[in-house]
Amino acid sequence: MTTVTNITYDELTLGQTAQFSKQVTKDEITLFATLSGDHNPVHLDSAFAAASPFKECIAHGMISGALISAAVAMTIPGPGTIYIGQTMSFLLPVKIGDQITVKLEVLEKNPKYRVKIATRVFNQNNEMVVDGVAEVRAPRDKQTINLPDLPKVTIS
Amino acid sequence: MTTVTNITYDELTLGQTAQFSKQVTKDEITLFATLSGDHNPVHLDSAFAAASPFKECIAHGMISGALISAAVAMTIPGPGTIYIGQTMSFLLPVKIGDQITVKLEVLEKNPKYRVKIATRVFNQNNEMVVDGVAEVRAPRDKQTINLPDLPKVTIS
Repeated sequence: MTTVTNITYDELTLGQTAQFSKQVTKDEITLFATLSGDHNPVHLDSAFAAASPFKECIAHGMISGALISAAVAMTIPGPGTIYIGQTMSFLLPVKIGDQITVKLEVLEKNPKYRVKIATRVFNQNNEMVVDGVAEVRAPRDKQTINLPDLPKVTIS
Repeated sequence: MTTVTNITYDELTLGQTAQFSKQVTKDEITLFATLSGDHNPVHLDSAFAAASPFKECIAHGMISGALISAAVAMTIPGPGTIYIGQTMSFLLPVKIGDQITVKLEVLEKNPKYRVKIATRVFNQNNEMVVDGVAEVRAPRDKQTINLPDLPKVTIS
């Protein structure tokens, strides 16, 4: 079983970094379309997308938001974090097959356990696709959690 | 086949509203955990969540982000919209089974087809769970699209 240990408010240091990486394939796009209800063909139909400004299918921009949220929940501060806010600027499209890396950097430690974290998202060519900032309430207590197995998801 | 027609930049009016609604069930949480990689038990394990500050499993906050993005893509401005940015403040947790409604309102029409849209997210008790603003480049051209069928997603 996989475990994850958090970084508490007291342990966090300004400038501290972490990163979280995941490939965005057709499967992630199908799952996002299914859960969100956004069935726009620019994400799903390559013939339609070929005539769009992007010339090919692109990922829903908010998939990067999902990866940012996972980065914050799984790395720094990790388990026990309460999400307060997020800003995102979408700079470049994410294409099918891109290997996406969320790079986190602690920007501010404020009263009441509030922390601001830069959430910069890059593709495999080191181009920034999303810039943004998360605000969280960092955990007070050290915590190691077991990650539960997920139900099996099959796409057919 | 379902079709969706967009609202062009010229057609959008200040104060114009639209809404988009979806229930957040255990399935949406499983799909979000699978696509994002956030397997935190506070979203997935009811025994673990019972000991958390929320007392029960809650949805990943960014699921509301996914629904906001779908609302913008499917209602106003709809197809042809390019997402520029999004801010979100997470005000209240979304619980399993909540019926979530994203209410959009056109706040600003700016040069270069840029539009700011309030993206307020409510639960079935009319409590605001997320407040935020989307910035988009609205479509210039009228467009009606056919929504493609999605691959079948099975959770077991």
